[in-house]
Amino acid sequence: MRTVFLPVLALGLVAASPPSLSTVIAGQASAAQSSGRVAPDAHAPSEIVKAAPASDWVAIAASDLLVMDLPPLNAKPRRVVIQLMSPPFSQGWVGNIRKLAAAKWWDGTSINRVQDNYVVQWGDATEKKALPGGLETVAESEYTLVKTDGEEGDIILRHPKQYVEDYPRDWAWFEKGWPAGYGIGESTRTLLSWPVHCYGMVGVGRNLSPDTGSGAELYTVIGHAPRHLDRNIALVGRVIEGIEHLSSLPRGTEALGFYKTPEERTPITAIRIGSEIADLPRFEYLSTESASFARYADARANR
Amino acid sequence: MRTVFLPVLALGLVAASPPSLSTVIAGQASAAQSSGRVAPDAHAPSEIVKAAPASDWVAIAASDLLVMDLPPLNAKPRRVVIQLMSPPFSQGWVGNIRKLAAAKWWDGTSINRVQDNYVVQWGDATEKKALPGGLETVAESEYTLVKTDGEEGDIILRHPKQYVEDYPRDWAWFEKGWPAGYGIGESTRTLLSWPVHCYGMVGVGRNLSPDTGSGAELYTVIGHAPRHLDRNIALVGRVIEGIEHLSSLPRGTEALGFYKTPEERTPITAIRIGSEIADLPRFEYLSTESASFARYADARANR
Repeated sequence: MRTVFLPVLALGLVAASPPSLSTVIAGQASAAQSSGRVAPDAHAPSEIVKAAPASDWVAIAASDLLVMDLPPLNAKPRRVVIQLMSPPFSQGWVGNIRKLAAAKWWDGTSINRVQDNYVVQWGDATEKKALPGGLETVAESEYTLVKTDGEEGDIILRHPKQYVEDYPRDWAWFEKGWPAGYGIGESTRTLLSWPVHCYGMVGVGRNLSPDTGSGAELYTVIGHAPRHLDRNIALVGRVIEGIEHLSSLPRGTEALGFYKTPEERTPITAIRIGSEIADLPRFEYLSTESASFARYADARANR
Repeated sequence: MRTVFLPVLALGLVAASPPSLSTVIAGQASAAQSSGRVAPDAHAPSEIVKAAPASDWVAIAASDLLVMDLPPLNAKPRRVVIQLMSPPFSQGWVGNIRKLAAAKWWDGTSINRVQDNYVVQWGDATEKKALPGGLETVAESEYTLVKTDGEEGDIILRHPKQYVEDYPRDWAWFEKGWPAGYGIGESTRTLLSWPVHCYGMVGVGRNLSPDTGSGAELYTVIGHAPRHLDRNIALVGRVIEGIEHLSSLPRGTEALGFYKTPEERTPITAIRIGSEIADLPRFEYLSTESASFARYADARANR
C-alpha cells in the first residue's frame, strides 16, 4: 500500500517547507495538548509518522481517485494522481468530473496554461468540444458550506477563534482530512466552512460570475497559496502523487501563462477514475483526527 | 528601461496570485489611508502601476545585480537576474557574493538540487572547490537587525501591531523595498527586523549552526513561502527576471530534491555582477514608500 501523508502532502511536501496552514496544525495540536491528549514529544516529525499505528491511517478508495496520464518524457512515464474531494464539499462539481472521466472526455485534450507561482490548467484548448449530457450546473452558494446552525454565541464558544497563518481574519482547521477555512455567518449563529487553496489543490476553471464552471476545465496550484481564490472558485481535490510532472512544465509566455502555440501544450493521454486502472497502487493518509497527526503537527510547529 | 514591479514580483508575480505578504501591503495602505494620504481608488492594480509617475520608480544599479547564465534550452537563452539585498540587511554575505562573482567562482558549477514546492539550489556539487581569499565569516546575529532602541513601550506605540498573512505572531512591512518581518525584542525597548522568505527570494545555504554559509551555495524559493527559514538562514536578494528558468527545472529524485546523477544537473555558464555585462537592460522598481504603491496595495487587497 502506498502511504501518503496526505494532509501535509496536499499543503506542501512532508520533507519540504511547512505547509501553508502550518499554524492550523499547530493550533490543532495545541488544543489537543491542553486537553491532555498529547504529551510533549521529542521525536522528529518523520519518526512520529513512521510510528503511527495502522489504525491512524485512512484508506483512499480507488473510486475516489482521478488519474491523469501524460506522454512519457525521456522514456519515463508521467502519471498524476488526484484525490477527489469527499463530502460534504463540492459534490456537484465532483459528480460532473466523474461523468467527464467516464465519458473519456479529457482524452486528447491538453495542458494549456502554466503560470509561474500560480497554476497549471488543463482542458479543451479549442473550447468547442461538446460536453457529455447530464452535467449539473452548480450554484455559487456551494463554494461555502453552512456547517452548523446554533444559538447566538454558541458557535464561537465551541470553536475558539484561532488566528493562523494565511488566515488572520477567519480561522482554519482540517475537515475530514481536507484543509478548510471557517467563519462565522452574519448572525453569529451560523458556522461557515470552505475548502482552501493550498499547494497541489485542484480547482474548477470558470467564466465570470455567476458561472461556477462544469469541472471540464481544471487547474492545480503550483505556487504560494492563492488565498483570493478561496470561496471564489470550487475546489474538487488535491494532487497526491506526480505534482512534479505539472509544476516543472515550461511556463507559458502569453497572458496568464497560456502557451503561445499549440505545439507547446502537453497532450493528455487519458484521465480515468482510479477504479478503472488495473495497476494503481493503493493510497492511504494519516487521519487528521488521529493522535499521531496531532503529535506530528506539534513537532513540526515546534522544531 | 525595464520596469519591474519589484515588491510584488519578489513575492509573487503581478498578474498572478496575491503575494504572501499581501496583508502587509494592505496594512501599509490602510495606515496611509487613515492618515488621509490615500483616497479610495476604483482603478485596477495594473492601471495604478501604469499611471505611477516616474518619480515613484527607483532605478536599480547594475552593480547591485547578480546575473546567472545557463546554457540555452531549445535554442532559447536562459538568463536569471537577481537583485542583491541592499543595506542594512545581510551585507556580510552580499560582500562575499561580490567577491565570488568577481573571481568567476561559479563558472562551471551547477544547479544541484530542485525540491518541489521549496527551493532550487546551486553551487559546487563536489564541495571541494577552493573559495577565493578574503571571504567574511558572518555571525548568526546578522540574521536579525536591531532597528531601533527606544524607551519602554515606545516602539509598540509607534508600530501598532499588525496581524498579517503568514505573520500572526509578529508583523511585516517593507523596508526600503524589501519584504521584512518585525518583532519586539525581549525588553520591549528594541525593535528587531529581518528579511523574509517569499517566492523568488535568494538565500545562503549553510551547514549546521553556528555556520551561516559563505554565500558560495545559494538557493531561491520556488514554492509557498517557507516561514521557518526566516531568521534561520541569510537572505541576500531576489530573482527579478528569469525565475521560470529555475522553477521549471526537473525535480531531483534524491532526498531533499538533489539530483541522482551528475548528468541531471544544469551547468552554470557564468555568474557575474551586472556592471560586467554589456547588454543588460536597466531595471527599476516601484518604491514601496510611494503613494502609487500604497494605492496599488489597497486596490489589490480590496478587489
